[in-house]
Amino acid sequence: MGRFMSRYFRDKEGYHLGEAPKDRTYIKINANESPYPPSPAVLEVLTEKLLTTQNLYADPKSTELTQAVADYYHIRQEQVFADSGSDVILAYCLLAFGSGRGGFCFPDVTYNFYKTFSTFFGLQAQEIPLKEDFSICVDDYCNCGCNVLLANPNAPTGLKISLADVERIAAANPNHLVIIDEAYVDYGNESCVPLLDRCHNLLVIQTLSKSRSLAGARIGFAISCAENIEDLFQMKAAFNPDSINSISQALGCAAMRDTAYMHQCVGKIIRTREKVRTALLQRGFHVLESHTNFLFFEPVGLSAQALYLALKQEGVLVRYYDQPRICTYIRMSIGTEEQMRTVLAKIDKVLLHCCKPRAAIVSPYASCQTRIEAN
Amino acid sequence: MGRFMSRYFRDKEGYHLGEAPKDRTYIKINANESPYPPSPAVLEVLTEKLLTTQNLYADPKSTELTQAVADYYHIRQEQVFADSGSDVILAYCLLAFGSGRGGFCFPDVTYNFYKTFSTFFGLQAQEIPLKEDFSICVDDYCNCGCNVLLANPNAPTGLKISLADVERIAAANPNHLVIIDEAYVDYGNESCVPLLDRCHNLLVIQTLSKSRSLAGARIGFAISCAENIEDLFQMKAAFNPDSINSISQALGCAAMRDTAYMHQCVGKIIRTREKVRTALLQRGFHVLESHTNFLFFEPVGLSAQALYLALKQEGVLVRYYDQPRICTYIRMSIGTEEQMRTVLAKIDKVLLHCCKPRAAIVSPYASCQTRIEAN
Repeated sequence: MGRFMSRYFRDKEGYHLGEAPKDRTYIKINANESPYPPSPAVLEVLTEKLLTTQNLYADPKSTELTQAVADYYHIRQEQVFADSGSDVILAYCLLAFGSGRGGFCFPDVTYNFYKTFSTFFGLQAQEIPLKEDFSICVDDYCNCGCNVLLANPNAPTGLKISLADVERIAAANPNHLVIIDEAYVDYGNESCVPLLDRCHNLLVIQTLSKSRSLAGARIGFAISCAENIEDLFQMKAAFNPDSINSISQALGCAAMRDTAYMHQCVGKIIRTREKVRTALLQRGFHVLESHTNFLFFEPVGLSAQALYLALKQEGVLVRYYDQPRICTYIRMSIGTEEQMRTVLAKIDKVLLHCCKPRAAIVSPYASCQTRIEAN
Repeated sequence: MGRFMSRYFRDKEGYHLGEAPKDRTYIKINANESPYPPSPAVLEVLTEKLLTTQNLYADPKSTELTQAVADYYHIRQEQVFADSGSDVILAYCLLAFGSGRGGFCFPDVTYNFYKTFSTFFGLQAQEIPLKEDFSICVDDYCNCGCNVLLANPNAPTGLKISLADVERIAAANPNHLVIIDEAYVDYGNESCVPLLDRCHNLLVIQTLSKSRSLAGARIGFAISCAENIEDLFQMKAAFNPDSINSISQALGCAAMRDTAYMHQCVGKIIRTREKVRTALLQRGFHVLESHTNFLFFEPVGLSAQALYLALKQEGVLVRYYDQPRICTYIRMSIGTEEQMRTVLAKIDKVLLHCCKPRAAIVSPYASCQTRIEAN
């Protein structure tokens, strides 16, 4: 750290991205990327004109992109805000709506960005424990006296709540904002965008990084009533007034308009996901139901950390969380059929080599505790 | 405004971008864009592979891009931080180094983003008046008890201070950070990057939006000692952990490596700029010296606001500032030779139609005063 860093930020940590070591080629299933390339329509937007006019600023309002989102959801364009990835939109939301208003509450096990951002910027944040089975207790988010932020489906658990539950939460917090982060919605849940007509305190965030196969282009969007969207534009005007670069705007627009291709990729992912889930269950693992493009499971026979390390050794990167409640779990993105066949074979290889006779198996949670105490 | 916006941000304004009306085709010389396309080398980086791997996240450290910047300046890669445009880097700097440390001081007439951002986020900001001729009084920035932020060359004035002056300011503020925003440095000033060896409290910010013809790609970078750069990475990890999209990283890398093309474009701009400056001086306008890709001038015969409006009517967009001290001035970016010939012809047309007999000319400043009082 340099000697000029403000004391407000010293010793605070940002979000930790999934590792991306470059020492060898990995099957990288630790960042929930789509294994499929973007829509062929996306590749066609890169015209000579778009490239030779890179000397000009992009449209700061992302007009065509937000129109494509509005068309997809049959809403008005002024209900859409787009920016460079959903993280920066979450950041604007947490600041704009959370500063000095009691902040936000969110589950104790969810996308870690919510907590790291809130802590970093000194915002109030209330972590509400998920139930024992990692499901969300809807009642906990009713009349909770602060804004609500829920990933639905949730990450890294993969579990979802229903549209009716979202509506109940919105109705029970009429004087607070309810933000639903729908990064994974296309993989197995209904979007709550249609609720916006009657829930004026709802704000939905989505990304083009998952089901639209555009993680590299950095595009996210928010949908809410026009007034909340105006507030996000105000935050952007203060922080980074020029918006998404012009090429990403064009790619994103084409991706939003190719619904058939998105459904095709999502369909493949879901089929692969269910096969892998069955395979992991057959191996005795505890695997949560998933409505996303990843699986969240607790291995048996070795600790999650040991499996994570062994798979890395085998050229497979999965996500392991060194944190309470979930340190016995692995989050594994769904790659192609072929990738996942290889991954399952690697898991079997690891199990064969690592597993000790039943009596000697250390419970995963115990192993995790030991590790934590050793730190 | 929505009803959930935090009181901290209510009624605060963000930065106002130059207007971009779409009702007709304009000669748009109000945003200091380069009129020249990016380097041909830039157009070649868009390989099939880069496009079909948009499903994968970009390198969050922008490794190749920061290496290209490091190579250009003969510094170490860990001294470089890149992100989506220099505005967001300025934002991180103002927060990281300005929160609770007395904030930053900067000229009263400079890039408006500094003040709007500081005000928006409640940071201390000390505006130091430029001299009567809009030059920077270097002594004002020595031992000033807070961090210093200077655009050099300054905008919208176009004036610069020397490398020796930057060094004097850095030496006179050993316990504070001195940030030099070199957005326009390639058009007529030396970069102060070589001073970093002996001035450890110096941080330089540049952009690829101007001399590198990549405004549409949103790329900026900061150069400082490795410790300050680490602090910027920490801010980014909290705010928007994934960095520049992968296509812009590739474009930026190619642009940084094609120095010859950059010099060629800059040479053309400088030649055009000096011709236009001479032409404006011949028309009796007060035109400041320029070390940038724009001219800052006070028209004679009509007010700046009247000239701005008349030129807009004629299909030419220039920048007019509705603010104290500079409301009698116009900032005009340098386009191609041909564009600027047209613009000069339009100015002559406006002057011919608008100018009243000498006795009836209202002093531009008086006219500005009237307007302000009328508001």
